[in-house]
Amino acid sequence: MPTARTTVRRLPDRGVYDRETIATILDEGLVCHVGFVADGQPFVIPTIYARDGERIYVHGSAASRMQRTLAGGVPMCVTVTIVDGLVLARSVFNHSMNYRSVVVLGTATVVEGEEKVRALETIAEHVAPGRWREARGPSANELKATLVLALPLDECSAKVRTGPPEDEDEDYALPHWAGVLPLSLVAGSPIPDARLKAGTALPPSVRGWRRPRSG
Amino acid sequence: MPTARTTVRRLPDRGVYDRETIATILDEGLVCHVGFVADGQPFVIPTIYARDGERIYVHGSAASRMQRTLAGGVPMCVTVTIVDGLVLARSVFNHSMNYRSVVVLGTATVVEGEEKVRALETIAEHVAPGRWREARGPSANELKATLVLALPLDECSAKVRTGPPEDEDEDYALPHWAGVLPLSLVAGSPIPDARLKAGTALPPSVRGWRRPRSG
Repeated sequence: MPTARTTVRRLPDRGVYDRETIATILDEGLVCHVGFVADGQPFVIPTIYARDGERIYVHGSAASRMQRTLAGGVPMCVTVTIVDGLVLARSVFNHSMNYRSVVVLGTATVVEGEEKVRALETIAEHVAPGRWREARGPSANELKATLVLALPLDECSAKVRTGPPEDEDEDYALPHWAGVLPLSLVAGSPIPDARLKAGTALPPSVRGWRRPRSG
Repeated sequence: MPTARTTVRRLPDRGVYDRETIATILDEGLVCHVGFVADGQPFVIPTIYARDGERIYVHGSAASRMQRTLAGGVPMCVTVTIVDGLVLARSVFNHSMNYRSVVVLGTATVVEGEEKVRALETIAEHVAPGRWREARGPSANELKATLVLALPLDECSAKVRTGPPEDEDEDYALPHWAGVLPLSLVAGSPIPDARLKAGTALPPSVRGWRRPRSG
């Protein structure tokens, strides 16, 4: 699966290629960054996505420049990054981040029919598990206004850094604090819509939201 | 400053161009996603960055493919995205995210000499304010191994979504819960390095770390 284009060249010990690691990162991430080229200029746009087995789905307005460009089957890149912490070394030079990222290269195909509805369900469930059945499903017009793209996980790689700082041998004698400051994406208190009917219970998708999802 | 390439075309009410909004987003973000093209293939790579006035700096190993490619002055894109919350509407279709993102287009120049050291300080202070003076500064060899690039904020735009879900008129009668689940990047308990000297105090950069930085 790693090709010459996705083999991690720098710090190759951080390159991880097994499918389970890649799937775990893609399932925990919330937003991806999609790269594509238009008129020779690269663009990087954040968007929602979801993994379904050996592909990832991205969706958007059928009118968007990005969606229309990608639907033409041009080369694209989807990158998912999870920041796990700041790595604070004794030297400025050895400062780093703990993170997990996946890079997927390829070309997308447009998803239609039954698979399109399933893909939208997969995306909704990726963002907030349980939400698909808590909300009104898409109408025919809403489906028409939405473009869903599938990108196969044929050419992809992961890069992972974990653990403490790695200082130069002579720097361990320095008096500076060193260690890791863990970071994570955390949910605050839900803000009910102003027009919510009184007494509407908080649904499981909101009450139980966490990353990585439990179970 | 917004050009035809950075003008937000979809949902133009979400396009924000004033410099203060752009600066605030760039200063709060932690990681950027850099887009560039090699052999016709777009790549999107996460990396640390920092804003300094009217430019942003990215740094990396002088040996990295990305850094060497960008140093050649090819078109690049830097995108910073802050996820602020899940927007849960009564219909699946109107689900969204609250987020703030900045897209910068341009070509980088290599930063040398005095500015290079200042740029590294700016990056360290961006990630963990106060850290530059808490750690050992870079040696001549470490400076040589690091490539710092500057990208001017000449061509950039921001996109911001805030506030509650916007449902179709007829959907407000539905019984489904709707609202916003706020999300933020939160620091956990610092993990001291196993080889830390006993009694080393937690420094201000770690003790006080938060996004957005206070003050």
